[in-house]
Amino acid sequence: MLVVMKPQATPEEIQAVCRHIEQLGFRPHPLPGAQRTAIGITGNQGQVEPASLEELSGVAEVIPVSKPYKLVSRDVKEDNTIITFPGTNATIGGRDLAMIAGPCSVETREQAFAAAEQVAAAGAQFFRGGAYKPRTSPYAFQGLGEEALIILAEIRERFGLRIVTEAIDNEALELVDQYADVIQIGARNMQNYSLLRAAGRKRKPVLLKRGLAATLEEFLMAAEYIMSEGNYQVILCERGVRTFADHTRNTLDLSIVPAVQRLSHLPIIVDPSHGTGKRNKVIPLGRAAVAVGADGLIVEVHHAPDKALSDGAQSIYPEQFVELMQQSSQIAAILGRNVPHGIEITEAASVAH
Amino acid sequence: MLVVMKPQATPEEIQAVCRHIEQLGFRPHPLPGAQRTAIGITGNQGQVEPASLEELSGVAEVIPVSKPYKLVSRDVKEDNTIITFPGTNATIGGRDLAMIAGPCSVETREQAFAAAEQVAAAGAQFFRGGAYKPRTSPYAFQGLGEEALIILAEIRERFGLRIVTEAIDNEALELVDQYADVIQIGARNMQNYSLLRAAGRKRKPVLLKRGLAATLEEFLMAAEYIMSEGNYQVILCERGVRTFADHTRNTLDLSIVPAVQRLSHLPIIVDPSHGTGKRNKVIPLGRAAVAVGADGLIVEVHHAPDKALSDGAQSIYPEQFVELMQQSSQIAAILGRNVPHGIEITEAASVAH
Amino acid sequence: MLVVMKPQATPEEIQAVCRHIEQLGFRPHPLPGAQRTAIGITGNQGQVEPASLEELSGVAEVIPVSKPYKLVSRDVKEDNTIITFPGTNATIGGRDLAMIAGPCSVETREQAFAAAEQVAAAGAQFFRGGAYKPRTSPYAFQGLGEEALIILAEIRERFGLRIVTEAIDNEALELVDQYADVIQIGARNMQNYSLLRAAGRKRKPVLLKRGLAATLEEFLMAAEYIMSEGNYQVILCERGVRTFADHTRNTLDLSIVPAVQRLSHLPIIVDPSHGTGKRNKVIPLGRAAVAVGADGLIVEVHHAPDKALSDGAQSIYPEQFVELMQQSSQIAAILGRNVPHGIEITEAASVAH
Amino acid sequence: MLVVMKPQATPEEIQAVCRHIEQLGFRPHPLPGAQRTAIGITGNQGQVEPASLEELSGVAEVIPVSKPYKLVSRDVKEDNTIITFPGTNATIGGRDLAMIAGPCSVETREQAFAAAEQVAAAGAQFFRGGAYKPRTSPYAFQGLGEEALIILAEIRERFGLRIVTEAIDNEALELVDQYADVIQIGARNMQNYSLLRAAGRKRKPVLLKRGLAATLEEFLMAAEYIMSEGNYQVILCERGVRTFADHTRNTLDLSIVPAVQRLSHLPIIVDPSHGTGKRNKVIPLGRAAVAVGADGLIVEVHHAPDKALSDGAQSIYPEQFVELMQQSSQIAAILGRNVPHGIEITEAASVAH
Repeated sequence: MLVVMKPQATPEEIQAVCRHIEQLGFRPHPLPGAQRTAIGITGNQGQVEPASLEELSGVAEVIPVSKPYKLVSRDVKEDNTIITFPGTNATIGGRDLAMIAGPCSVETREQAFAAAEQVAAAGAQFFRGGAYKPRTSPYAFQGLGEEALIILAEIRERFGLRIVTEAIDNEALELVDQYADVIQIGARNMQNYSLLRAAGRKRKPVLLKRGLAATLEEFLMAAEYIMSEGNYQVILCERGVRTFADHTRNTLDLSIVPAVQRLSHLPIIVDPSHGTGKRNKVIPLGRAAVAVGADGLIVEVHHAPDKALSDGAQSIYPEQFVELMQQSSQIAAILGRNVPHGIEITEAASVAH
Repeated sequence: MLVVMKPQATPEEIQAVCRHIEQLGFRPHPLPGAQRTAIGITGNQGQVEPASLEELSGVAEVIPVSKPYKLVSRDVKEDNTIITFPGTNATIGGRDLAMIAGPCSVETREQAFAAAEQVAAAGAQFFRGGAYKPRTSPYAFQGLGEEALIILAEIRERFGLRIVTEAIDNEALELVDQYADVIQIGARNMQNYSLLRAAGRKRKPVLLKRGLAATLEEFLMAAEYIMSEGNYQVILCERGVRTFADHTRNTLDLSIVPAVQRLSHLPIIVDPSHGTGKRNKVIPLGRAAVAVGADGLIVEVHHAPDKALSDGAQSIYPEQFVELMQQSSQIAAILGRNVPHGIEITEAASVAH
Repeated sequence: MLVVMKPQATPEEIQAVCRHIEQLGFRPHPLPGAQRTAIGITGNQGQVEPASLEELSGVAEVIPVSKPYKLVSRDVKEDNTIITFPGTNATIGGRDLAMIAGPCSVETREQAFAAAEQVAAAGAQFFRGGAYKPRTSPYAFQGLGEEALIILAEIRERFGLRIVTEAIDNEALELVDQYADVIQIGARNMQNYSLLRAAGRKRKPVLLKRGLAATLEEFLMAAEYIMSEGNYQVILCERGVRTFADHTRNTLDLSIVPAVQRLSHLPIIVDPSHGTGKRNKVIPLGRAAVAVGADGLIVEVHHAPDKALSDGAQSIYPEQFVELMQQSSQIAAILGRNVPHGIEITEAASVAH
Repeated sequence: MLVVMKPQATPEEIQAVCRHIEQLGFRPHPLPGAQRTAIGITGNQGQVEPASLEELSGVAEVIPVSKPYKLVSRDVKEDNTIITFPGTNATIGGRDLAMIAGPCSVETREQAFAAAEQVAAAGAQFFRGGAYKPRTSPYAFQGLGEEALIILAEIRERFGLRIVTEAIDNEALELVDQYADVIQIGARNMQNYSLLRAAGRKRKPVLLKRGLAATLEEFLMAAEYIMSEGNYQVILCERGVRTFADHTRNTLDLSIVPAVQRLSHLPIIVDPSHGTGKRNKVIPLGRAAVAVGADGLIVEVHHAPDKALSDGAQSIYPEQFVELMQQSSQIAAILGRNVPHGIEITEAASVAH
């Protein structure tokens, strides 16, 4: 159920509708658009009597929603969601593409700083680096944990880069929320609903990776879990799906980008590193992702990939990242979009975070 | 690395080897076999100097292990793992097939008891029923939580059935461990490594369902996560994988049963309910699972499937379960196996649990 | 469009309806059932005016058919199609299971006779053996062609076994039709519509293998191509589909057996050799195929698999085939079916063929 | 086995080596490169004694080839294969991208000419249009056959466009070879080895579409079948593969473009129409295909898609094709490539063909 407010509805009228929805035992989700605000209604029971809402002041119409997803849908919010990072020029989902780069894992302070310096110089606005690594083997390197998060926070101070890093469980989530700018939920946890709900209770943007075998609907429903808890800042990420094809580690499904953009207002970016698993395919598929219309890229860059503790084979060299940035910028321009050159700190306070 | 003890090695010798392994900074996993004990060695670093171990008293040989899985492997433990339930005749992995049946979710006390009475009468030894449901939609019925666990415990008291139910996160795990006999990890959480580790620290058997897109190796490695924490009672479960085929909800991959049995000593059962998603396919595929050599079945049975809050379309009627039990019993006999008729409580104490 | 005749309709009435359909520019397909005859109507245009047919003598009702398949459907023919082999007791689709066995390729007269002698002794009624092999590489052994067909015909003379062999193009089809008892269309040619049509113009039964990525509907539509040309003796064969799973060469999809049996009157058998690609999985999956309700098995048996020119790794030994026959027979009995022991020639003429 | 000639080897020396290979009972395939000629050796037996070849005049070295594909491999021919169309400026595989456009099927002379006029005006050099349609249903429109081929030949005369059309069997192949400029082998026939061999005996370029479930190796081996018969002008085409994903008809696997380019000298183009099955995804995925480095696009364009007899839902409007051409041209420039504006007839004779 969706309540669409009149363009001229006042904040007070919107609040009154929300209170009324709560009194009915449901949960209101006010979603401001360019023209007017829509209020999504969620709750287990699913049966709302529209009549009582239609009569409230400032309400334009009440629309029953039949699709399983509500808050992620363009039916609820027509305009693209643009995620901003206060105190900086960085955005995700707007005209500017978001370029996120860095090593698979934070291995040492030196390694992370070396990568950060190079990706910042190449123009990335965001730094990625794993503190908690979900590895197939319990005996493989699992990440440095909070030690890595501290290094990442230092990188934000030093280079201004906004930090994207993965939370693998509720405990890690608390720490990631404390140190990072964007909370990543990995592909293997895309249907870890407990973690999705917990991320939904945070107020940092969440980067949600598509599961290895997730349909478009399941992907959107995972985002809906986060949004249903009140966190509307979700960034979707295509990172390859599992198929019979064996020339790449996963099959990068670029067609999901326009498919998501038709149905949802949420931004969607692409990970050509996990999407191919092979260094020599990252640049071509990264270019293709920009050309298909993605809102950004997340790329593994390592200053010495052959020595990486994880994912070395798919990490590109810093000079390759420079090339990818240049080509992405040129392709983006054709689509009327822009690859900004690096992060700008617009307020001193923001670095202190 | 695997230390194989001599058949005549004493418990003291085994303990001495374990202590030595710990002093080297690794973790020993003594795994007793019919003839002799093998000791698996795990630890992040991976480099053990075999010479120091070969000289210890009671050691027959030291074998380097190259496969990514160790504790799940027949290299470490040649004999089948047979999981027993003290105080009862129930086993999983031995000559007797384990028949696990019940509704998708525990909806009410009446509904659960109705199903339990009927599956117990038909000869099942185990009762399944969800207290925590991982649902694609945040707005769908999510299970009754602890209220359901209390009902399940009452069913154990009343019918003697051992209880299998899913834990979806660490919080639910604590409660499931307290109330149930087998902790289920669902397909969507097969690579939720944090949850796997936590389950590995419990001492109840864990039923691990194969992920929708999991390879055999990934499936075994998920079991390895649990075992690496010291819980060696893992039951694998095939429940269908995701493919292009659209005549069933998932494609039940029965070939993984003999594939697992070659590589691993762990029992493997089959879920024809989720594996097909269609009531009319549960009996044929259930029969096929027994014929392929599975160690048991887990089946959704509802006394009134059309009224089920979840998975009604794939739940069979109690009378269909009777038919499946009969046919399974006949097929099992051809393979030299047995479907016992129901649970027997061998000690009064066990019901008190 | 389907014309259902009254139970008491005379052959003359049926013929009159068929003539009327032809006059309308369509093609009639009379399909006799146990109770009454139905007449399928096919033709490119798709628009038939039912009124003119409903008025004809002997017509019970005219049913518009919305599914894309017609002649394969149980809507058109409710009773199972049972394919008989005149002069023998062999059938496919009836109470008796059809057991088809033999080497992947006919390599030499000695090799083929050695296999034939053993599979006949074990009780198979049908002999398989490739004369034309569709190989991934143009440089691999492609089969002996007509020389193999002559050997196969000798095997029929010598052992009474009915011959199943593949036609890979129209030229081979002419020869296979001349020498064999069942024309096989391979998985790679399942959508070679030109070959399907040509096979539809023959009057020998056609064994149609499911394509590697064929949905149930596409599989049935391929059979429809054959039937639309007037050859109603089609045997479907599941032989594994391509998925991400890598522990077997293909993923054997046994759920398609009950799915086909609900929708279609055609018999369906299973090939556990190609379905798994591994010798040690042929017996378990062969048993499972019988248990799921398949109408027969087609199995690769080689007297010396390690020397086979093709598919040696998935060919079982003759003694393994004996074991499979025994277990299949026992499982079939549980389902009220029968594995006859071998072929019986009921008329001298039939061997002369 | 591969014989690499010295850069200064004379045509006579090359011929002498070829004759020697033939005398050994094998088949030589001389493949001229920019620097020097390599001679591939094919033949069923596979065992060549290199010593006798190394001693011949002009031979630089003899290299055993272990990969299953030979003639398609860059090991045999390092330089890209560039296919030319005498009498025109059209090429496939060079710096210029090949833009192939037109309706799914030739339906009428008017419809085909309307589409041809518009795609020629937009700058395409090639016209596609089906005369023989492989349809899932035997009752669907199957194409106009030779009547369509005659219309296509008229379109070449009128607009200069080179003609690409599919051959579905040997009979159609003879006619397509007679009328068209490029023989298309469809996805469903990718492993119809009989048809591949027949196409290999023609001297027109062959456009080979990837099968729905074909691995990279199988795709290259299908091209090898054509080349092994002496036709070295093969163009590969990615057109989507079958996966679980249901938001597009097929999953377009753009990563195969750089994967093919590493292993093979053959050109590879992309079909975003079949690759997505949805009109609104053709332009974004077409752009992505150019960005990933494809050698061209093949696109379904219909002047009135809603009235198309086949594939209307995935055909784009002529004005959309103009937009795709413009964006492709801009992206190609970034990669140092070029989208030429339309076909130029360089010799009067060529139109007469």
